[in-house]
Order: sequence, then C-alpha cells, then structure tokens
Amino acid sequence: MTNHSTTATGGAQGTRPRLIINAFLMNTGSHIQGGQWRRPEAQQHRFNELSMWQELARELEDAKFDAMFFADVVGLYGNHDGGWAEHLRHGLQIPSNDPVVLLSALAATTENIGLAATSSIIQSHPFQFARQMSTLDHLSGGRVGWNIVTSALENSHRNFGAAGLEKHDDRYAWADEYMDVVYKLWEGSWDDGALLQDKAGSVFSDPERVAKIHHQGVRYSVEGPHLSSPSPQRTPLLFQAGASPRGQEFCATHAEATFTALVDPSHAAEYTAKVRDRAESLGRARDSIKFLQGFHIIVGSTEAEVQRKSDDLEQTLDMDSLLSHIGGNLGVDFGGLPLDTKMKDLTTEGGQGHLAAVRRAANTEDPTLEDFVRYRSINNRLAGTPEQIADVLEQWQDAGIDGINIINSTLPGTYTDIIQGLLPELRRRGLAQVEYAPGTLRQKLTGQGDRLPEGHPGATYRGAFVEYSAAATERPREQTEVEPLPVGS
Amino acid sequence: MTNHSTTATGGAQGTRPRLIINAFLMNTGSHIQGGQWRRPEAQQHRFNELSMWQELARELEDAKFDAMFFADVVGLYGNHDGGWAEHLRHGLQIPSNDPVVLLSALAATTENIGLAATSSIIQSHPFQFARQMSTLDHLSGGRVGWNIVTSALENSHRNFGAAGLEKHDDRYAWADEYMDVVYKLWEGSWDDGALLQDKAGSVFSDPERVAKIHHQGVRYSVEGPHLSSPSPQRTPLLFQAGASPRGQEFCATHAEATFTALVDPSHAAEYTAKVRDRAESLGRARDSIKFLQGFHIIVGSTEAEVQRKSDDLEQTLDMDSLLSHIGGNLGVDFGGLPLDTKMKDLTTEGGQGHLAAVRRAANTEDPTLEDFVRYRSINNRLAGTPEQIADVLEQWQDAGIDGINIINSTLPGTYTDIIQGLLPELRRRGLAQVEYAPGTLRQKLTGQGDRLPEGHPGATYRGAFVEYSAAATERPREQTEVEPLPVGS
Repeated sequence: MTNHSTTATGGAQGTRPRLIINAFLMNTGSHIQGGQWRRPEAQQHRFNELSMWQELARELEDAKFDAMFFADVVGLYGNHDGGWAEHLRHGLQIPSNDPVVLLSALAATTENIGLAATSSIIQSHPFQFARQMSTLDHLSGGRVGWNIVTSALENSHRNFGAAGLEKHDDRYAWADEYMDVVYKLWEGSWDDGALLQDKAGSVFSDPERVAKIHHQGVRYSVEGPHLSSPSPQRTPLLFQAGASPRGQEFCATHAEATFTALVDPSHAAEYTAKVRDRAESLGRARDSIKFLQGFHIIVGSTEAEVQRKSDDLEQTLDMDSLLSHIGGNLGVDFGGLPLDTKMKDLTTEGGQGHLAAVRRAANTEDPTLEDFVRYRSINNRLAGTPEQIADVLEQWQDAGIDGINIINSTLPGTYTDIIQGLLPELRRRGLAQVEYAPGTLRQKLTGQGDRLPEGHPGATYRGAFVEYSAAATERPREQTEVEPLPVGS
Repeated sequence: MTNHSTTATGGAQGTRPRLIINAFLMNTGSHIQGGQWRRPEAQQHRFNELSMWQELARELEDAKFDAMFFADVVGLYGNHDGGWAEHLRHGLQIPSNDPVVLLSALAATTENIGLAATSSIIQSHPFQFARQMSTLDHLSGGRVGWNIVTSALENSHRNFGAAGLEKHDDRYAWADEYMDVVYKLWEGSWDDGALLQDKAGSVFSDPERVAKIHHQGVRYSVEGPHLSSPSPQRTPLLFQAGASPRGQEFCATHAEATFTALVDPSHAAEYTAKVRDRAESLGRARDSIKFLQGFHIIVGSTEAEVQRKSDDLEQTLDMDSLLSHIGGNLGVDFGGLPLDTKMKDLTTEGGQGHLAAVRRAANTEDPTLEDFVRYRSINNRLAGTPEQIADVLEQWQDAGIDGINIINSTLPGTYTDIIQGLLPELRRRGLAQVEYAPGTLRQKLTGQGDRLPEGHPGATYRGAFVEYSAAATERPREQTEVEPLPVGS
C-alpha cells in the first residue's frame, strides 16, 4: 500500500459522506478466517454463550457501528478430503446457532445498533419467517435487516427434504416467489391505522384495514392475514450478496444493501455503475442500493506494527480450513487436488460471478485454484496505518462503495483494534459517524423513511388486498353456517 | 368456595411438595379473558413492545415464578358471525407475534425463570426448529421449554400450504414423526464430549462423536448433522396439552409436563392416575409427567374484596369474545347460534376430550352450548382469600396436580395481585418456592438431571448414529472425487 497523506487524497473533514460500517459475524466458532479461533486472545469459541455476544454488541454500539451483520449456512460445506470430518476439526461454521434467535437477545441488550441476519428461503416457510422478522422488528424498535440467500450447499438442501441442490436459476425463481409472499404479508396485509387499541370504543383492530393475501403460487399457498401488526419498518432492511448474473438481477430488483467482494476500486466503479443502471431501469432510485465491500482490516500505528500483526495472524491462519471453505462454496472437494487445477474445470454457470473477480485479481483469463485461494484469502485484506487505510477507503468510496463489512480474525480483538486504531482517523475525515441518526435501521442507513421507498417491488403491495379485508368478507349474522370440525389440542 | 381454615385442611408448613407456578401468557393483546385488555390498568395492548415483557419478566422472576409459558396459534379462530372481522375487533389473539423470538429477548433480561413457548409442527421444519430451540437453550443457560401442538385451526393450515385442516389422528402421526426428527438431532447427532475447542491441539470438534441422522420418513427427509452442539438440556423441557384419547397417548409418551383444564379434584385424581398408568406401561417413571392445572385466580384479603374484584372483572369480560374463541377451538361459528344447541351436534371425535369435561362440570350426559361456555369461562376460576385459595390448591395437589398455570385478566395486574396477595400464604405452607433451585429448567422442575430421563423415547437416540459419524464416513485422501457443482450466493 502506498502511503498517501490525508490531504493528498482529498477528503477534507466533513466533505465526504460517511461510510456505513458493519461488523461481519456468524453465530459460530470459525467464520471466515480459519484457524484464528485458536489464538489465545480469541473469544469466538464462546459463541454458545450469550455473554460473549452481549459484550461484543455493547462494544460495537459504543463505537457507533451501524450494524452487526450475521452470515449463516444451514448445512455442511460438502466434502473435504473425502468427508466432512475436517469441517468439524476446523470448526468451519459447525457447530453454529440460529442468528435470528440470537438477534432478539441482542435487541434486548442494545438500543441503536442495526441487527441483520441471514435466512435462506429453504429453511423457513415464508409465513413463519415473516412473523418472526416482524416480531424482531417490533422488539428492536425497527433495527432489523435480512440477508436473503438461496443456499448453495447440497447438505443444506438435504437437511430440508430435497434429494440434492436445486439448480441455481431455479433457486432464484423460488426466491422471487418467496419475496412475493413476504411482501404481501409485510406490506399488503395490514393498512396503516389498522391497529386502534381503542379501549373506550372497544375496538382492537379495524377489520376494514386488515386483509388476507390469498397467495397461490408454484411453491406456496398462503391465505393470511399476516398475524403481526405492522412493525416499524414493515419489511426489514433487505441485504443480498449474490454476484452471478441472476444474483445481480435479484440485487437490482430487491436489495437495499449488497455485500461485495470486488477486486479493486476500478472493479467497484464498474460493478456499482452496472447494478445501479439496472436498478434505475427497473424504476428504482439510483442510490437505492448501498454497496458494502467486505474487508479484513489490520491496523497499526506504524508500518512495523502492521507488519508484526500481519505476520502474527498469518502464522495462525489455517490454509486447509480456507481451502475447505472455498471448496465447499464451489461444491468441490479440494482435498488432495493440485493447486494448478484450472478454475474453469471446477465451476459451472453459477460460479461465474466469483470467476470473473478471480480473473481480474489474478490478471489471467484462465485462473487456477491457487489464484482463487490467493484471491479469497488476500484480496479482501487491508493492512496499514490509520491514514493508509483511510486513504484506501476513500478510493473505494470514490468508486461507488457506500460502506464496509468488517471481517474478523478474533472476537472481540479485531473490532477492539479497529475501534481504537482506525475509527478516530475515519471520524476525523467525516468517514465514520460520531452518533447514531434517529429512527429505524432503514432511516439510519438511507437517510430516508422507515418504510420501503416507492419504486421498490415490495411497495407495490400496499393496499393491494382491500377486497379481501375482514370487513369485506364478513357475512350477515343470519347466514351463519354450522360446520362441525374436529377439535385438537 | 367454602372457607376452610388452614389447619383444617392439613398442609403443615414444609410437609408438602411445592407447587410449580407458571404464568400463562401469549404474545398478543387478548389471550383468554376476552375484553379485559380494555381495562384502564391493563398493559397487554403494549404486547408489541419489548419493555412491557421485560418489566413483567423481572416481576415474575423476583417472585420466583417457575416459568413464563407462552401459548400460540398460527392462524385465525375460524369464523364468528360469518367472518373474521369480530376476531380483529376483539383482538382475539390477533395481532400476535412469535413467542420463540420473544423468549430470546427475555433470556437476555432474566437469569432463572423458565421460558416456554408453543410451536406447532406445521409452522417450522423440524431441522430449523431444532436449531432455533438449541440456540435458545444455549443463550438462556438451559431454561427452555417447548409446548408441542399440532394446530387445530383451519386457517393455520391454509397459511402453511394445506387446502384445509389435516385429520386429527393424522396430525398426531405427523407429530410422532416430527418428534422422531428433533430427538435424533437433539439427542443422537452429537455425543457428549464432541465439542473440544482445543486451541493447543487445534481441534474444534471430534469428528468421531458427531453423526448425521439420515432420517427418511413419511413427511421428512433430513440428513443432518444437527448444526448446534449440545445445549444444556439438549431436548427442551417438553410440554403438551392435548386431552383427546390420542392426545393423552401422546402425552403419556412424550410430555414431561402437561396443561390440564380438569373439572374438579376428583376429576384430576382420575385423569392423572390414568395418564400416569399409561406412562408407566410405556416404560417411563410414574412421576415423569408434571400436571399443571390452569386457573384464573382472583385473590382478596376479605371475601368482600374478592366479590368486588370478581364483579369488576365480570363487567369488562366480553362474552362474545369468549364465544368466538371457544367456537374457533371447535371449528364452529357460534355467531347467532342458539345457546341450547346440543354439544354433541357440534363436535366430532377430536372434541371428546373437552366434551367429557363439560359433561362432568354440567352434570349432564347431553350438555348444551351454554353449558360449555359456562364451563370454559367459570370452571377455571379460583376466587377467594389467600387461605381459601391455598386450601383449594392443596385439594388439587392431593388429587395429583403438581402445579398451576395462572391465566391472566390484565398484565401485569393479575400477577402483581397474586404475588402480593397469594404467594405469601403459599410460601407459609411450603407450596411456593422462596428461591430458585440451581440448574436447568428440567432440573428445577423435576429435581433430577439436565437431560431427558432414561425411559423417555427421546433418550433412546443417544449414541444411535455412531455408524454415520464424520470420522466413519471419511474416505482416504486418494479417493477424493471432483464433482463440479453450481455456486450460489
């Protein structure tokens, strides 16, 4: 990294928009930086304990992080060395716990920080999921985000009844219907003003303003109404991370924030412009999607300290764990595979999003497995003094990135380091907020309202089910029919 | 109620086992006592707010309540007056929020009180549900209970893809398979000692002690392994409430605690003996099921005060709301139906559990709708001075009841009243605990271990999947196959 002075790169205090700053987490012992759980100071092996997460949540909130963002998978990363034993030995995202349940405990622990969780369309029926998210949005005062995923791991699908993995594009068609159902429930089922709680007038809710949704689709049949009354955001803030052509289209359609693993600022400029163009052509505002680049940040007060910290982490990084993670993402068992294996021999259509980035990073049309591992393990690393890192972040910001998603090596060490070492410099430049904005997560991150903006597909369901309201379907008392039915528990 | 003196009914201090004392709640504005949300002091209309639940949780924990028990439904109570408008006007369990998500926030708010939630087999896939409960059991330090239900409301089934209600016995067959899956995940997938977190030895989990479950059944196909490592209780404490013959069988097989709505102590003696006999014949210990009778308690320091409070509540009780609730449970629209309609004309096989109790309460072989409503609204009411109520509770205890589930009229008023007015007398008699026992909810309530006892069907899955352990299925490195697969987001 070249050492620019602050003034050389522009960025006078307060003239730049702030960056969105998230902690990238998972409710497990080893998320991305394989092997680092073994470090003496690492606390992530305590992921089963509420206290570990509460301490971290309070530290991040004190430092005005925008959100704790929880990744998740609902299955094993395929095979490595011919089986799944290595995943257990490495602790590679197993054991893991449910992030939505954890977020509720953290909602009770914090007041301002955003709480985002990954949930796959395969793991929770949309009627159930919509209610759980509404509950969490109520309890947290509107601080909830949802990272929409379709699950790329075969074992995940076999945990939920499938014989194997659904085809990539079929999963996105499934996701489109899933979004339809949850939008109908969140946005369409309850009109504003339906919840009256009028004690004197003896009316809890206005039956003219609550409707069934009568969804009938390929995978789902859902009558409704939504059981929860409208929460502060209704639809949680929508995150997404897919970078395949179909994933980009999904992002341009639905996402309000997207996680990126782009190669460099010029790649970022190109990618963000493309997705923003597409969102605009779909009738959404150009700035309606926030791009959050993932970074593994190592900060030191001198270059010597940075080098020492980097060497230190390099020593405890477990490359085999990384290989097993990357292989699992590709559906390939890398155990015993030569590192000069061509990537093109390993991936199919769905992998093109990754492959394009690797080609760019390795500067070759025909990257190898080694190029890919290098890309995944090093590309997202940002090591430097506070000034150096801030300079680079400004370059990314100039290229269209709205914020960063900070990958950790140790909990809470990585964040403590960044809070103490980097945030003061970011604040000095106006790149990091010094106080939370009021309102919901959506309001805090977009500077606009609590609800999905006009032009978003979810917003089209507002008031869409008037003809199915309780009052509309009510029949006069004399037409009452007696229909005996069994009684259960 | 006749006024026995304490000594007349026996129960000298400390000679009786204590009663289990639960608060019976629902994450909604109007649970059972319809209309009471309208009272000026009632706070349950704030059910969307975390602070209301936190305040209540702290009050109940200070008073050493055993558990907060959350009922739930995932749909509307059918029709009333020809539609569902009345349910909205009454706030009859709609809107409502998810109890599992709420419990996690309350786990972060409390330290000792048990946290039990209802979840239906129709609403959550067993792989997802098992992980959410394991997460909650971890976060709460083993304080979680699960009330197993099969959902008797048609709309609930139509919210989850069915054309209508499954037949009563088919739902229980479904429940049996559901239990099989979750037992396999909770009890069979991870052996004790599998989680090593050995930093020096670089082993997170022992692959020889973690197994897939390879469940293949009528409704579910689940590969495993369970993603969560064993939580303090593994299987949450199992509650159940079904009183039909099939429900009783399910109770005798699976339940560790059951909710009852029995008519009187002689009914309790008969019912508890019958279920305990059956449990014993299934190889379980005779005391392995705790019977918790539901009561609506009105306590006053004098009989005049009791009368005043009763009259007061009677005035705000909404009978139409009660009718709509009861009708929904039976699958019958009572709107406009004559009160002398014979019960036998309204129910089918599944309703016999209720019907037997109503016959007993009304002392007639052929009860009417009016008998039923009276039974439901009055039978579970216990109004008196502390001494009178304690005397009656001792009679129920002598008849085999282990504890009580306290229905509320107002939150937190009902519980504040009982804490101040009744608990001191119960403590004096040794009927209410003065401090929490150590350990998990199971340990606190049963006085035994953290885990399911031997003889319970769930316990039979311990160590059952050794042949599917990660180590057993691991193949040598040289046999590794490359299987290209699509990559998703």
